[in-house]
Amino acid sequence: MKLVNVLLFDNFTTLDALGPAEVFSRLKDIYEIKYFSMDGGSVSSSTGARVDTIKIDPIPISDILLIPGGFGTRQLVNDSNFLKTLSSLVTKSEYVLSVCTGSALLAKAGCIDHKKATSNKMSWDWIIAQSTKVDWIRHARWVVDGNFYSSSGITAGIDMALGFVADKHGYETAKTISKSLEYIWQENKEIDPFA
Amino acid sequence: MKLVNVLLFDNFTTLDALGPAEVFSRLKDIYEIKYFSMDGGSVSSSTGARVDTIKIDPIPISDILLIPGGFGTRQLVNDSNFLKTLSSLVTKSEYVLSVCTGSALLAKAGCIDHKKATSNKMSWDWIIAQSTKVDWIRHARWVVDGNFYSSSGITAGIDMALGFVADKHGYETAKTISKSLEYIWQENKEIDPFA
Repeated sequence: MKLVNVLLFDNFTTLDALGPAEVFSRLKDIYEIKYFSMDGGSVSSSTGARVDTIKIDPIPISDILLIPGGFGTRQLVNDSNFLKTLSSLVTKSEYVLSVCTGSALLAKAGCIDHKKATSNKMSWDWIIAQSTKVDWIRHARWVVDGNFYSSSGITAGIDMALGFVADKHGYETAKTISKSLEYIWQENKEIDPFA
Repeated sequence: MKLVNVLLFDNFTTLDALGPAEVFSRLKDIYEIKYFSMDGGSVSSSTGARVDTIKIDPIPISDILLIPGGFGTRQLVNDSNFLKTLSSLVTKSEYVLSVCTGSALLAKAGCIDHKKATSNKMSWDWIIAQSTKVDWIRHARWVVDGNFYSSSGITAGIDMALGFVADKHGYETAKTISKSLEYIWQENKEIDPFA
């Protein structure tokens, strides 16, 4: 089994994390999904849903590390302890996937210097201000740079997760999952109606 | 504030509940979202995410009652205590919204007799077998019948929630929310690519 470790924090955007998770959950024989947070316990989210998490201790190995965004990122970019932990998580992960303002956290932590990345378009100016070392790509539904995938806002994460599955397991597998979710997958990562 | 009460149960499909919830969460001054279950405590879902819930006791009044689907429904259609509680919840709700196989629960509970309803297309035969008294509409992204909205599978619930917002608060409000979610809203409820 490959481990999809989702990093949650108070006031994350629910769909950022659970949209991509729904995609990976359709490959039950390949992926196991776990939810982590700095302190463990239940974590608040944009929808008022509180999700149970495992405390990050020790730093877990991930095949895929998934980083959502959300209003909680506004505090976390100034939380050196969180950013250090995030950096450690990234070094123990084969692939890193960020959704929405999740890439702002990775940028501030110095995890994606000199890498191409995208993010939410409504908070674009704040996001790119987190690091001038990132090669920010404004016009993209999602961006791939080596083992790092980043998506635009919220539901773009579902498109990206399907794109990741297509890259690793073939287009037909991704298409089958999108149909099982009755999701109208925007397959072309370069088309961004919100940029 | 209007209350959106989400009924959760073990093995619900995460996005069925939290996709529409993300839509309502964008109208923070209008809607408060709460999560309920028969026993309270944390409830399992398709993505492995466990969501905290309030025990249904007494039966809460809802402005909107949201019923997700998921594999958990397979047991629940045979759980008379659950179906009785569901029926009581419906009588105390101004609007009832179901996603995916959530409509199978409402059908089996006798809550939508002689009403138009749709549901997931992959489990269609099982769903319509839950009640012959429902006017099942196969070809629809979502269906509206009076105060009852039902959507097709999983992500169709997001389209329906936006449709509900459009009906109650105007098209521009719904469109603004879809943009904030960077969601490519399929606005026409009669177009169903998965039927």
